[in-house]
This record gives sequence, structure tokens and C-alpha cells, in this order.
Amino acid sequence: MTTFVLFGGTGDLAKRKIIPALYSAFVNGRLDANFSFIGVAREALDDADFRQRVLASVSASIEGSSANGGGSTPATLQAFLALTSYCKIDAREAADFEPLKQRIDTSGANAALFYLATGPDLFIPVVQQLAAHELVGDNARVVLEKPLGRDAQSAREINAALRTYLKEKQIYRIDHYLGKEMVQNLLVLRFANSFLEPLWNRKWIQDVQISISEQVGVESRGDFYDHTGALRDMVQNHLLQLLSIVAMEPPVNANPDAIRDEKVKVLRGLHKFTPEEVSKHTVRGQYRAGAIDGKPVISYQAEPGVPAASRTETFVAIRAEIDNWRWAGVPFFLRTGKRMASRSAEITINFKPIPYSIFGTNQRNLRSNRLVISLQPEESVELFLKTKEPGEGIRLSDVALNLDFAEASTSRRVESYERLLLDAMHGDLTLFVRDDELGAAWDWIDPILSAWQGDSEGLKSYISGSWGPAAASYLLAQCGSAWGEEYVED
Amino acid sequence: MTTFVLFGGTGDLAKRKIIPALYSAFVNGRLDANFSFIGVAREALDDADFRQRVLASVSASIEGSSANGGGSTPATLQAFLALTSYCKIDAREAADFEPLKQRIDTSGANAALFYLATGPDLFIPVVQQLAAHELVGDNARVVLEKPLGRDAQSAREINAALRTYLKEKQIYRIDHYLGKEMVQNLLVLRFANSFLEPLWNRKWIQDVQISISEQVGVESRGDFYDHTGALRDMVQNHLLQLLSIVAMEPPVNANPDAIRDEKVKVLRGLHKFTPEEVSKHTVRGQYRAGAIDGKPVISYQAEPGVPAASRTETFVAIRAEIDNWRWAGVPFFLRTGKRMASRSAEITINFKPIPYSIFGTNQRNLRSNRLVISLQPEESVELFLKTKEPGEGIRLSDVALNLDFAEASTSRRVESYERLLLDAMHGDLTLFVRDDELGAAWDWIDPILSAWQGDSEGLKSYISGSWGPAAASYLLAQCGSAWGEEYVED
Repeated sequence: MTTFVLFGGTGDLAKRKIIPALYSAFVNGRLDANFSFIGVAREALDDADFRQRVLASVSASIEGSSANGGGSTPATLQAFLALTSYCKIDAREAADFEPLKQRIDTSGANAALFYLATGPDLFIPVVQQLAAHELVGDNARVVLEKPLGRDAQSAREINAALRTYLKEKQIYRIDHYLGKEMVQNLLVLRFANSFLEPLWNRKWIQDVQISISEQVGVESRGDFYDHTGALRDMVQNHLLQLLSIVAMEPPVNANPDAIRDEKVKVLRGLHKFTPEEVSKHTVRGQYRAGAIDGKPVISYQAEPGVPAASRTETFVAIRAEIDNWRWAGVPFFLRTGKRMASRSAEITINFKPIPYSIFGTNQRNLRSNRLVISLQPEESVELFLKTKEPGEGIRLSDVALNLDFAEASTSRRVESYERLLLDAMHGDLTLFVRDDELGAAWDWIDPILSAWQGDSEGLKSYISGSWGPAAASYLLAQCGSAWGEEYVED
Repeated sequence: MTTFVLFGGTGDLAKRKIIPALYSAFVNGRLDANFSFIGVAREALDDADFRQRVLASVSASIEGSSANGGGSTPATLQAFLALTSYCKIDAREAADFEPLKQRIDTSGANAALFYLATGPDLFIPVVQQLAAHELVGDNARVVLEKPLGRDAQSAREINAALRTYLKEKQIYRIDHYLGKEMVQNLLVLRFANSFLEPLWNRKWIQDVQISISEQVGVESRGDFYDHTGALRDMVQNHLLQLLSIVAMEPPVNANPDAIRDEKVKVLRGLHKFTPEEVSKHTVRGQYRAGAIDGKPVISYQAEPGVPAASRTETFVAIRAEIDNWRWAGVPFFLRTGKRMASRSAEITINFKPIPYSIFGTNQRNLRSNRLVISLQPEESVELFLKTKEPGEGIRLSDVALNLDFAEASTSRRVESYERLLLDAMHGDLTLFVRDDELGAAWDWIDPILSAWQGDSEGLKSYISGSWGPAAASYLLAQCGSAWGEEYVED
């Protein structure tokens, strides 16, 4: 049996993601019967108050999504609340940990999972206190939310401090993109099929595009975001994690460290930019006022909590390269932004054009073959290829072989947070980020951060609701490529 | 303008296929305004009689299919009949050709297309007479229906005789499988896409299966069929044509002779069997009584026109190999039969299994990746691959990326005969069989015919409505493979 202790239990992430995910796992019988859930925060609440919040969070989530609500009944909800309690803790007050210690010791749980959904400044104080109260024995696990540092040095400092109290295999660094169904499917697509891997290299692939676009702005996080920016908030973690899975060599097996060994090799292979290369291979932007879905939205600099002269980037596009035998010379285009034209997360593998067309030059100029793996808003795999337009003569047309996952299977969908939470409880580290991965990712990010700091000219603005600064298109045009949405549909 | 002269104009093929195809081309404006159509046969009919037959044939076809009927009106039908006339000709009576000659000469047509939908015994007499009446000048074309010979020698004799009067480029040997949309699409799939061709060889392909199964028996053709058999009727032409397109090297361009040059190389590369190899690599069968779609059907030997002790094969399965660098060691399994469980024509490319599974051995034993190109009953392309079953853990599932041509395009469908007929009128030889292709195909068939003649034991029987003799399964099992329908669906 496991005690699940959620620091930041009254926070936004807990409310929107973690508590609903925990409840979904409970409803679907994925938690053992003696499981218990302790919410922790600084607020002075009693158990009843916290249960009220849990009830509100779960109810909102059931309303918002059929997936989490499947199987929920008033009885399951009551049973879940009965397992739920609250501890008021100020992470810097040692004495506050005593009641938690007692509750865990008397619960009879043989394992505790501490989920730190707090700011990174609390990671070390909390873990220190957990250690001081002998709560981080071999059966304890600690889950950490991003951001894990501000740069390579701060990330290494946090890691070093954590490692004073914890073994690496007890540390579960969350990157919720890794919990997405499609990310695991990418491993299956690559390594359970014989027809992709022979093509999965510089010989047959023209470029790779990984794009995560959001329509939202900074919402209520203006102050936090302005100290972070898109590079730290999205590229260092999500985009580089996706890149490492797309680009990795076949692991010796599917065990967590075998996979993470290969991922870290990719991250270490990322070509580190000189300052000149930063200005050539990166584009950063900040959103101006504009419109999203026809509704006017304000500029980044007008957002609450953001300084009027802020130079923080809300958009990044980077042409990355991986210095190894498989990928040398293949551009990996990374892009992310807020207030973009649509919300999507997509990995596109553009295959090289055919070497020569026997069908002559009077064919429409069609795109090369490409594999598009969509993570958001819908999960899908599409393989675009050319076929003959039915009828007389030979006219080519660009069509998609298509896999609709909703149709292909009736299995229960598992949301990202539920998957990661269950993996952490089961001790499966595969989808969590290892310290050396984190370090390697920051090592590649650092030179970009430094170069940008010294160059206040480089920040472009873009209109909210667009696809970012024009420079991001030029970045690809230089390589004879273009972002997916820039192709005119037939 | 063109005069279309149809020998065998009152025959079954004319009625069912050729006349409806011609009318469909007419209705869709694919024939020039001054086109005229002369039906020829031995029967004493006048123009009105023949028009009545044409009307019946076209009406039946419009009823049976929406495709041919599209755009037909009473007015178009009258216009077509107005262009239609009839000539009674006994092919061995020189004088009978006089009226035809006069009609063509006075029509003002600058080109004539003679479509010989007759038995092969009439090919040479007809062409001889056409030549004697100076009807086969440079603008004349002659279309020939199968069978084109009984063996390599007879095929060469027919070719040699034809070539006394005609240039090769005037001879259009029909193989209606080549007129199928999917056959041309196969060229496009292979040579307009970059992702298939790198895999299209012995390194990545396990085996290729080409299967044409019919539910019908010999129908009214018992006597003809018993002198022919499935090897001559289906393998020598349709199956080898499909094989040559699947296996060909990239042609230098899409011109008829460039494509046919590559096809003939494949046919010449087919490994010719010794008598011992014939007994190891071929299976032939003959249908017994059984049931098709739940209705009882009689045995082949009980069919009208078939001798009670007939040893003619109605089923063939062959393990062919191509002796060249691309295909050495890759089995090409050919199969065709009458009275089979279902009607289909399918090309399956089975890719090799992955070299090693990182997902362990506790996965269901799923089939390797495969590309399935269906020609009948529906046209489709399916790429079967493995994905992750949604939900917790990693379970693999076999799913199909799928292309539905009816959905993918709204272009007018063109039936096989219409396409071939228009190509012949436009002088496009791509989809017609060249003399050297025909010769090479027969050269490979001959040793099988001879070996079978000397071995009356080899003929297996199979129950109507089955998938043929069990030996046809054993043929594949020896290579670690199985026919598509033998895999149990999930």
C-alpha cells in the first residue's frame, strides 16, 4: 500500500491535473485498496476543507471530460474522499512535518510517494525535512515538477542537493509530454515495425519538425513567465524530450535506463551553438496584441505581472542539429509559442524527395512523403504519400494513410498525468527525466540563453493569432523547407 | 477521327465489356465527334439488328453500374447508335472484307482501330485480309484479346505472322488487369514516393503474394477452359503482368517502351523450373462439388463441356523466384483459382520481421508489417503496422493505415476496358503487352506445362468454396509464410 503525499495540494496544478488523475486511477481500480492521499500546503485547512476542494476539483474534471468521469459514482467519490486528508505544512518549519510523519508512520503504508507540485525553491527544503524525519527510506519516491532549474548550473545544484538525501532511482522528474500516449507510441512505431527504421536516418529524412503551439497567453502566470520565457518553459524540457525520442538509437531493451541511456546520448549529441550560430539558428519572438479565434487579445507586455518593457520571449524557433552518424546534416526544427494561430503539438518527419521523377515535370509540385504524429489536439498518425488520381492519365495527388486511434481501439484512454502518476507509484522510471538528461538538455540551452542575454536586438514581435515572426519561416526556407501550415492545401 | 472496328462484335466479351466501355467513353466526351463504330461478326445482321444488340448491351451495363451510366441520356444513346453500323464478315472469306473496306474508305477516317475480340485462330486470317485490303497502314492499330497462344512456340508463331503485316507498335495486346486503376497506382506508389523504394528489395521484403481468386466456375466456357486451364488462362498473363510491375526496376521514364523494357527484364529474370522444381514449387488443383456463399455448386468434371475425367487445373499456386540482385531469395507466391471462398485480387508485400524486439517476448505474436494493394472487389491500399494499444503499459496491436480511394477523390472512375480502349485509340502502348514480354512469360510457363503433362499424379482436388488444396498452404509454410486469409484476425 502507498501513501500519496501531494505538496502544493491546494495549487492550480493539483486542482486541474493531479487530483483528477489520482481519482481517475482510483475509479479504474488502479490504486490498491489501502492507498491513502494526504494533501499538503501552507494554508490552514482541516481535512473537511481539503475534501471539499478535492470534491470540487474532481467534479469539475468529470464535467470537462468523459474520460476521467468513466465509472465515477457518488459511492466511489465518497470512498476516495474517505482516503483523503490534509496536513498544513510550511516547508521551512521543521515542526510542521511532525504530524505528517506521524500520519504516515501510523498508516501502515510500506511506501510513500511525495509529489512536489511546488516552486523549485521548495524542492530542497522539503526533501531536507522529509529526510530529517526519516521519511525518504528506500521505499520512498519523490516526484518533481518543472521547472528544474534556470540553467545548467542551477539544475546541477538542485540535483546535487537532492542526491544528498535520495538515490537517483527515487527521483521522478515529471515532463508531462512524456506521459502522452503518442510519445510511447512513437517508441512502438519506431521499434516494433520494420518499415520505418531503415528510413529513419540522414539518408532518407530531409528534416524533422517538432512544434508545440498554444493559443493561450501567459494567463495568471505573468510574473513567473517573465522570469522564465519560452526557451526554459518549453524547449529545454518538452521539445528536447520529444526530440530525444525521435532521434534515439534502438535501446537494448525497453527498461527505463536503457531508454534513458539512448535519450541522453542524443541530447549530448546536440550541436552546441557559438554566439554567431545562436543568431543564425534561433528566432525568438514576443506576442503583440491581436486576435485569437476572432476575439481581440492584449500584448504580452500588457499582461498582468509583466513589465511594460519586457524582453522575455514567448516564441522560439530553433534549427538544431545532432552531431552523430545517423543525423549529421539533418535539421531538427523546434518551435513553440504562445498566442499562436492554433493549439497543436506535432512531430513531422519530412522524407527526402524522390531522386528523379519518371512522371515528368508537368506534375504539380507536391510535397515529399511525410509522417505526421499529432499529440494535440487529437492523437493521430498520418503518412502522406502520392497516389494516382483515379481516372485517365497519370496525375499525382497527395493523400494521407491515416490512423484514427479513437476508432482503432476501444481501450480506456489514460491521460498524461494519470499515466505518470501510476508509473511513479509502480516504480517505473521510463517516462521520467534522469539527472544526466536534464543536465545535457541545460548544457545545450545555456549558450542560447547567454547569447540572447547579450543581444537585446534579436527579439522579434509577432501578432497574436499568427504563426510567429516571419524569421521563423526564413529559418526553414534557408534549408528548402517550410512549416506544415505553410503548405497550401490542395 | 477514328473508325472503331470490332471483330467478334456479337460475342460475349463485346456485349459485356467492350461496347459498354466504348459507350462510356462516348458519353464522357472522350471520343472525337467523327468517331464511328462498326461491329463485325459472322452472323447475318443488318445495322438495325446490331444497333438493337448494342442498345441491349449498353442498357444492361447502365443498370448494372452507376459508373458507366453517368451522363447517359436518351439523346446520347441515340447519337451513339447513329454512329454504329454492322458488317457481316466470315474471316476466311476475302470477299466479305470488301464492304468493310468501302465503308472505312468512304468514312473519311484517318485512323482505324481493329479490335479482335475473337478466338486466337482468327487473328492471322483477319489481319491477313485487312492487309490484303490495304487497311493496316501506319495509322491502323490492332487490338488482340487473350489467349495469345498456347505455349511459347505458338505465341511466337502468332507474333511472327502478325509482324508480316504489322509493326510491333501497331499491335495492342490486351491484358485487362493492366487497365485497372490500382495497377497504374502501383507505379505511382513505387516511383513517386521516396519511402517505399528503399525498402523494395530482398533486404527488407520477406515475400510477395499475388492472388486472384474467383467464386465463379467455368460458366459456359467449359470446352474452351478444359483446353486451357488456370496456368494459361490466368498465370501466364494477369499474374505475371502484376508480378512484373511489382518487381521492376525504376524505368528511365514513364514512356511505354521504358516501362515495358523493365517489365520484360523481370520476366526474363524469373527462375525457370527444372521438372523437380516444378513438383516442389507448384501446386495445381481442380474443384470438387461444394458450396459458394451457402449455395451448392457442382464439380468441375460435371460442368457442361468438361470431360468427366478431365485433368485440367482450375487452381494454381506457384512459388516463383526472380534471379536478380534486387529479388534473389525472395519468394513470389502466385495463386489463382475458380470456385474459391471469395472473389478478390490482391498484392501483398510482406516486410521482414524486426531484427529484435526491445519490448520483450511477452507480446502477442503479431504479423510483420505489410502493404496490401487490393484490386478487387474494392480498390484500396493498406499499410499494416504495429502501434501501442492505448492505455497503460505497452501492448502492441496490428492496425492498418488506410487509403480509401472512393473517399480520397471525386474524379470519375474509369473501368479497365474503357481505359485500355482509349489508350489504344490515343496510341498509348504503356498498358499493353509487348511481343518480348509475351514470349518471356511463355518461356517461364513452358517448363511447368511440360512437367505437368508428364505427371498426372500432381493434380489435387479442392472443395468449391475453399481456398484451394492444402498443398498451397504448405508451399508457403515451407518458407515460414502464410496466405493472408490464414492469419487469424484479432
